[in-house]
Amino acid sequence: MSLFIVFEGPEGSGKTTQIHLLRDALRARGYSVVCTREPGGTPIGEQIRTLLHDPQNTEMLPITEALLYSASRAQHVAQVIRPALERGQIVVSDRYAASTMAYQGYGHGLELQMLQQITELVTEGLTPDLTIYLDLEVTIGLKRKLKDSQQGQGEWNRMDQLDIAFHRRVREGYLEMARQEPSRWMIVDATQSIQWIHEHILERVESLLQKRSLGVS
Amino acid sequence: MSLFIVFEGPEGSGKTTQIHLLRDALRARGYSVVCTREPGGTPIGEQIRTLLHDPQNTEMLPITEALLYSASRAQHVAQVIRPALERGQIVVSDRYAASTMAYQGYGHGLELQMLQQITELVTEGLTPDLTIYLDLEVTIGLKRKLKDSQQGQGEWNRMDQLDIAFHRRVREGYLEMARQEPSRWMIVDATQSIQWIHEHILERVESLLQKRSLGVS
Repeated sequence: MSLFIVFEGPEGSGKTTQIHLLRDALRARGYSVVCTREPGGTPIGEQIRTLLHDPQNTEMLPITEALLYSASRAQHVAQVIRPALERGQIVVSDRYAASTMAYQGYGHGLELQMLQQITELVTEGLTPDLTIYLDLEVTIGLKRKLKDSQQGQGEWNRMDQLDIAFHRRVREGYLEMARQEPSRWMIVDATQSIQWIHEHILERVESLLQKRSLGVS
Repeated sequence: MSLFIVFEGPEGSGKTTQIHLLRDALRARGYSVVCTREPGGTPIGEQIRTLLHDPQNTEMLPITEALLYSASRAQHVAQVIRPALERGQIVVSDRYAASTMAYQGYGHGLELQMLQQITELVTEGLTPDLTIYLDLEVTIGLKRKLKDSQQGQGEWNRMDQLDIAFHRRVREGYLEMARQEPSRWMIVDATQSIQWIHEHILERVESLLQKRSLGVS
């Protein structure tokens, strides 16, 4: 039974952990699960990922970012996601189109309608059955990040301030998208325990799978 | 005095030779000339060029190509072309947006209006003052190519046939764009001598520069 599930959320929100827990739980129930990620997921997509993540590419414009993420997505949908769904598998992707809307749209201020058009083009209209947003208050996420990078001396500098404003817009974007399509989104409080989060996600996914098996769309 | 000139044309049409001749002639007349190319022209653009030209990337979709060329173009306009024009230089680019319209649009069949929208987005409306199309009958171009690659035994195989149909559509695309905007396009017969072609191009460019210096747009 095919199902397309996407995880979204900031760094430090526990996406990877939850993806692995969900994958294992679904496999234990006998489902065939494909885990993938964006940018990347295909040979061409991984090359685009390298380019996007290269710390030397500081001069990259938001529109360039949006087009590179979208180029990676075009390959991802055509080569990985759609074939897996057609084989009846469950696809779990770490990020998808909502990331572009949130970061380049709400975050960097690119026009949402234009991003939506490019997204429809590269996905040929393929939207996730469920997008799970691991929600974290921005300063908590940045503090986790700061701690991780061993620079945790507490003071926010100018860049951190920019980061906060940017990441607040990104978060608001995600929450806004979730509000617009509650039946296709799930917002999860990422400060809860790993097990609590996993159980809530699994419950929602199982309910979706049950509806599918009953023929309810 | 700023001027934005683009060369278009298939492989083997002599673009590089003509760009160098035009650059040298304009410099000899005291103009400051910047020569650049697409995809590429910036550090990020050159990384995208590598990805686009990697012969291993055989699975690349036309839409992925279009987005990667456009991403490179966004950086190129913002970092190279527009700053040079603002400094009053003459910019001569080996390919620009018309290539995307011709190859991904007319050639691969992507919707022209959509490609036009993406182009306006990444160029912020910057169009060349003059696009010079070095026109070559498709089979002549492919024969030159075949000869260059030392495989010139004359027989066309299935891929060559596909190539011919594709390159015919690309050529028709260029000729169509030139017909739509004759004041901004120049079609040159690429089978003529190097010197003949150069003189005709230089004449047209000098006429443009003269109009500029007289304040005629």
